[in-house]
Amino acid sequence: MDAKQLDDALPPLVDRLVASYFADRRTQHIDKEYLPSQATIVDICDLLLELTFPGYVGRMGLTPHNISYHVGELLPRLFEQLCRETVQCLCHEHERCDERPPEDLSACRQKAFDLARDFVERIPEVRERIAADVQAAYDGDPAATSTAECILAYPAILAITIYRYAHELYQLNVPLIPRIMAEHAHRRTGIDIHPGARIGRSFFIDHGTGVVIGETTDIGDNVKIYQGVTLGALSFPKDERGRLIRGYKRHPTVGNNVTIYANAIILGSDAVIGDGAVVGGSVFLTESIAPGHQVSITPPILKVRPPK
Amino acid sequence: MDAKQLDDALPPLVDRLVASYFADRRTQHIDKEYLPSQATIVDICDLLLELTFPGYVGRMGLTPHNISYHVGELLPRLFEQLCRETVQCLCHEHERCDERPPEDLSACRQKAFDLARDFVERIPEVRERIAADVQAAYDGDPAATSTAECILAYPAILAITIYRYAHELYQLNVPLIPRIMAEHAHRRTGIDIHPGARIGRSFFIDHGTGVVIGETTDIGDNVKIYQGVTLGALSFPKDERGRLIRGYKRHPTVGNNVTIYANAIILGSDAVIGDGAVVGGSVFLTESIAPGHQVSITPPILKVRPPK
Amino acid sequence: MDAKQLDDALPPLVDRLVASYFADRRTQHIDKEYLPSQATIVDICDLLLELTFPGYVGRMGLTPHNISYHVGELLPRLFEQLCRETVQCLCHEHERCDERPPEDLSACRQKAFDLARDFVERIPEVRERIAADVQAAYDGDPAATSTAECILAYPAILAITIYRYAHELYQLNVPLIPRIMAEHAHRRTGIDIHPGARIGRSFFIDHGTGVVIGETTDIGDNVKIYQGVTLGALSFPKDERGRLIRGYKRHPTVGNNVTIYANAIILGSDAVIGDGAVVGGSVFLTESIAPGHQVSITPPILKVRPPK
Repeated sequence: MDAKQLDDALPPLVDRLVASYFADRRTQHIDKEYLPSQATIVDICDLLLELTFPGYVGRMGLTPHNISYHVGELLPRLFEQLCRETVQCLCHEHERCDERPPEDLSACRQKAFDLARDFVERIPEVRERIAADVQAAYDGDPAATSTAECILAYPAILAITIYRYAHELYQLNVPLIPRIMAEHAHRRTGIDIHPGARIGRSFFIDHGTGVVIGETTDIGDNVKIYQGVTLGALSFPKDERGRLIRGYKRHPTVGNNVTIYANAIILGSDAVIGDGAVVGGSVFLTESIAPGHQVSITPPILKVRPPK
Repeated sequence: MDAKQLDDALPPLVDRLVASYFADRRTQHIDKEYLPSQATIVDICDLLLELTFPGYVGRMGLTPHNISYHVGELLPRLFEQLCRETVQCLCHEHERCDERPPEDLSACRQKAFDLARDFVERIPEVRERIAADVQAAYDGDPAATSTAECILAYPAILAITIYRYAHELYQLNVPLIPRIMAEHAHRRTGIDIHPGARIGRSFFIDHGTGVVIGETTDIGDNVKIYQGVTLGALSFPKDERGRLIRGYKRHPTVGNNVTIYANAIILGSDAVIGDGAVVGGSVFLTESIAPGHQVSITPPILKVRPPK
Repeated sequence: MDAKQLDDALPPLVDRLVASYFADRRTQHIDKEYLPSQATIVDICDLLLELTFPGYVGRMGLTPHNISYHVGELLPRLFEQLCRETVQCLCHEHERCDERPPEDLSACRQKAFDLARDFVERIPEVRERIAADVQAAYDGDPAATSTAECILAYPAILAITIYRYAHELYQLNVPLIPRIMAEHAHRRTGIDIHPGARIGRSFFIDHGTGVVIGETTDIGDNVKIYQGVTLGALSFPKDERGRLIRGYKRHPTVGNNVTIYANAIILGSDAVIGDGAVVGGSVFLTESIAPGHQVSITPPILKVRPPK
């Protein structure tokens, strides 16, 4: 009985659904050839973590004898996957803009190869920066017992590591992959750093859930921020046809040695936080703070509640 | 030695644990037949995402030729899983309230079948709404480069998509499944939308982490909210026996074309946010805002920090 | 061609990467023997959830007949994994502090065995506390329809359950494992409870995303907190060499029957929140609140926006 009812009900619905796919093309990717794979980009993130923190992430029991073989196995795998996904993304842009596949696929492949090579060449320098971030986590949190604990259990280390690599791909103008990497880190940590943001050395985010750092944010060295902090945009100008204007500076600038406490919100490109400034918890700011100044919110109102 | 010590220590502990299960039945589900499976409900969410964004989520390489076969394979699978879990949930309610399994299991099965059919019939309309949400994400964020990027990398699209389907099941009075779906989306995105909330067309949540939208919230069309926003309840009246009263309107109403910035908190059913209003970052509100008005918090106090 | 280019480019990069591992040892774990496995600690969390909520988590269809076999299978597995990881952590501490492996490995193993036994002995009492937490979730949220829904769909139950077990290991001075467990719960729920915090009976966190509870926080019985609440440290004194001082009381104390609404921030050990106090949404506090008092923030400023 059920089966019979089902046989009647489902085929017309399949037809309606398929028809709806062709009525509105914004939410489907049918009859197009190129798209990056989210799963492969997650693999790329995992490989980068494994290459960055050998022995801590992924394979254990590494020795001075086997480490070269280990890296010699991981690095070509990373390269190959990054190359393939970059081809997909470059061709996807072609297809999306020109409404057809790219004419010269081999040029696309060569470009992806060059981009992936430029990227992997930068890994050692990026790792140096990440080591300074790990030290900043240990130095900045009295609850930390070792740098090992920071690497194994601090969401900020995961989020900042993936950000630093995604930022390199963003600077190389690789489409889509940096944002998918950033969103993967966001999902795992609650920390949302746009790969376009520029962040100096020894950066630390404590706890991290709810942190948002926008695309055109600039952050100096030795900056520490806490959970729930937003470095965001104030409002969005539109063009004469009512569409958002994209690509201009719209997020704050944060100097060196700045601390921003939990849930503070700093919005707009006019907000320049001077070197050594301290922004208190829950502060809402759209203006600049001079170097060395502190800002804080007004104390809460006390009410006496009558006993029940 | 270790093994001997273990043989002595564990059996009495097993007995103590098992005894504790029967001493307090609130935290066990033993000797009862019906319970929904969280894992299957996650599968249902994945199938809905795949049917909603064909080619973007799940199988790639879809063409006008294979798309009907693809949908014709996914849809019966979704139907079957939803049917089975709905039977579990309906019977679970029986068992929980009557302290025994339902007498007429076949009636339960027929009801689940009808509910699942009503639900799948609604998928095309829900997809239309979701397409408008994708457009709202692109139109609302200057950092977005394409609707494809929104589908692949915006947590709001995942959270709102699952919310829209969970809301349909909530309206059909399917127990438990809508909340388990919502919590799955919450876990993946940090966005907590109760399936009971009513949300209009073209809804966008930017960044999203920490957003909470309560069960009896009403939201109009073209609303945009940011990370950390709460649309919550103010306080909970209790009955004469001191138990919470459940099921009445206790969350805010938000009009059309409203923007609510990061970390704003709006509480209680008395809070009605008029059409076109703007609620600033970190604002705490328990009262109404007239149409077209803006509210913002007081500027922070500046303190000059003496040099060290 | 590609392959040839790759053969030229990658080997020197492998060498550079490997050289970088030995230039800065903070971010590698090479040529050392002991490290806990994050994956096994996640398994330990899953086993604890399965033992705590039999029939709800993991295997279904449990009966009074098979429950002893089920527990008799899970408990030795938990014990064995916990033992093995505790050995790794104890030896890791040795290796980290003394720069060499522990001399007496069998003493290390015996110590781990004793710690794991002490821990599993405590499971029934911890379960009792968790049952009171489940009841507190149901009693505290008008949207909850049953304790079953709380167990299946409330992130707070997952986070508090893992916290309560991690806290026992923290009290037993097991290194690293408690923090890795806490971070696993943080990742799954957005709720960050340090295992060092002390939390009384019947604790509930609604929604939960963004909650931070620091290492030396004390919380009484029947406390309810909402999403985005921080119980954090105010500032960190440093020793004469400029290094953070670790291990002293630096977080708030919260009495019995206290409610703290969304996004409130309470910082420092001077902040003592008296019994029955209510802290409003978005309040920022560094001082004490007397018993029975309410605190709230100033109302937002209203601005009339001129029509466009």
